[in-house]
Amino acid sequence: MSKMLTITETAAWLKARDNYLIITHRRPDGDTLGCAGALAQGMREQGKTAYVLYNPEVTPRYARIVEDYIAPEGYKPEHTITIDTASHDLFPKNGGEYIGATSLCIDHHPSNTLYAEYTLLDGASASNGETIYDLLMEMYGAVSAKSAEGLYVALSTDTGCFAFANTTGNTLRVASLLVEAGAPHRELNRLLFRTRSRGRIMIEGMIYSGIGFYFGGKVAIAVITMDMMETANASEDDIDDIASIPGSIEGVLAGITIRELTSSRDCKVSVRTSPTVNAHAICLHFGGGGHPMAAGFSLLKPVDEIKEALLESLKDHFPND
Amino acid sequence: MSKMLTITETAAWLKARDNYLIITHRRPDGDTLGCAGALAQGMREQGKTAYVLYNPEVTPRYARIVEDYIAPEGYKPEHTITIDTASHDLFPKNGGEYIGATSLCIDHHPSNTLYAEYTLLDGASASNGETIYDLLMEMYGAVSAKSAEGLYVALSTDTGCFAFANTTGNTLRVASLLVEAGAPHRELNRLLFRTRSRGRIMIEGMIYSGIGFYFGGKVAIAVITMDMMETANASEDDIDDIASIPGSIEGVLAGITIRELTSSRDCKVSVRTSPTVNAHAICLHFGGGGHPMAAGFSLLKPVDEIKEALLESLKDHFPND
Repeated sequence: MSKMLTITETAAWLKARDNYLIITHRRPDGDTLGCAGALAQGMREQGKTAYVLYNPEVTPRYARIVEDYIAPEGYKPEHTITIDTASHDLFPKNGGEYIGATSLCIDHHPSNTLYAEYTLLDGASASNGETIYDLLMEMYGAVSAKSAEGLYVALSTDTGCFAFANTTGNTLRVASLLVEAGAPHRELNRLLFRTRSRGRIMIEGMIYSGIGFYFGGKVAIAVITMDMMETANASEDDIDDIASIPGSIEGVLAGITIRELTSSRDCKVSVRTSPTVNAHAICLHFGGGGHPMAAGFSLLKPVDEIKEALLESLKDHFPND
Repeated sequence: MSKMLTITETAAWLKARDNYLIITHRRPDGDTLGCAGALAQGMREQGKTAYVLYNPEVTPRYARIVEDYIAPEGYKPEHTITIDTASHDLFPKNGGEYIGATSLCIDHHPSNTLYAEYTLLDGASASNGETIYDLLMEMYGAVSAKSAEGLYVALSTDTGCFAFANTTGNTLRVASLLVEAGAPHRELNRLLFRTRSRGRIMIEGMIYSGIGFYFGGKVAIAVITMDMMETANASEDDIDDIASIPGSIEGVLAGITIRELTSSRDCKVSVRTSPTVNAHAICLHFGGGGHPMAAGFSLLKPVDEIKEALLESLKDHFPND
């Protein structure tokens, strides 16, 4: 069993040691990468040796915030730190040698399996960035502009620029302190939240034009075909978070996205629901599952057949519409 | 000339008087309405009489935040307060009798014409909500949950949920304090930033599908026709902030929106640019103008003719593309 640490204990633990390797999670996002970069930067400023393990899945969007810290070939750390990584399943593919050998895990997922020797867990925070900010302040009494930049990326991307339901007063408090510390929030907001690629614009246009509404507008189904992706010249970065679109439409209680993956007979279905509709139950019927408000399944069938089967099955969930 | 007041002086001025009428500006937004409601609420909680002048242009989106404070027919205030209203031109149509008779103006536009007897002006703040928060704290030492709700609407809508370039560390600081004070930020964020009407989705789909790119992708032109509005069954609320879309596309330096207003020969053109392109100069050529990065003009010509004339005129601004 892992020993749980407070912020103060973690700060003391980190200050007493040296030669760290920071590990980010599989399919890395702004929180894991921004925190890894900020922690490495903060410790380096105080004379420590700290590197970030190269993550083969880093997308161009976030590459810049860790590039200065990537561990050189053959680096042998004394201590490893994972960030935002709830379990061994989420280690990056090239991080296998560190499974079962994590010194410290810093995370905010209540589902953390406590696999590390020491764990700093704040299950109530929207992002690990908030914890890393408090930790750096506890360690050194200040956060540099460069660390603040990584942490602002962490906070803002994990909360959809402070619009998601996980945002708390503390998220906004730390964000304001990061801006005061010199985080280039204007530039970051423009890049992360106010710039859309032409591919994104085109694919969104096609999705919007094709959305179907059923059961009196309570169900919306969006379709993304391989043809659409090709016509829009869209990448995976371009369709980030696209499954949230149908569920964000006024009056919709179940927003469904059907996406063709490798062929017209290989589809991934994402279901996002309001609290009154059980997304998990909808997906269970098709051999999938997930959370009450976000679930999914995969099916080797064409889009039209899946849509038909879904609408048939949804009659049970919307008996009066 | 108006007498300029500090927050402390304004607080003393307000506490020493009573029977207020608060006036919001023409085409009212979340800042003017949220602040008006919050200030009326705060003063009422302390026993003052404070009403908000009915604004005939309030949209359903914001009606709720002022409905409890609307002045009854025949109410005769002792003092009038305008909020977020830079000049007499911006008074609502039914506010004519108060032109030249404003006791106090609270604003954040550096262009304020100082028309009121007293003025509290913070030209550096992103929203008046920040000033009203400081003012209520100075007056009463606390902000109730109901006032905090109006102020959160003010801050968040004026900054695009903290993503626009006007957002400062202070905006985020006040936002965190409003959340701590009980502003229902989750519900408000969902309504204001994470819910889109079917009309919005449909009109966005049509706009995206029709956007034209010129000058090597540096210019994007979007068109909104009356036909599109009708097909999408879209309201004014649905196309709020739509002029920012073409300028938000990667690589675009000048984003232009041409909108048919009352007929196919009556168009409004909005131009949004990056710092290297002068939006005002582009519009000046067509008898319009505005700011360096946001300007516009109106023209009694069909969309196609306007587009052609714009592309011809833009050759001077993009000589190498």
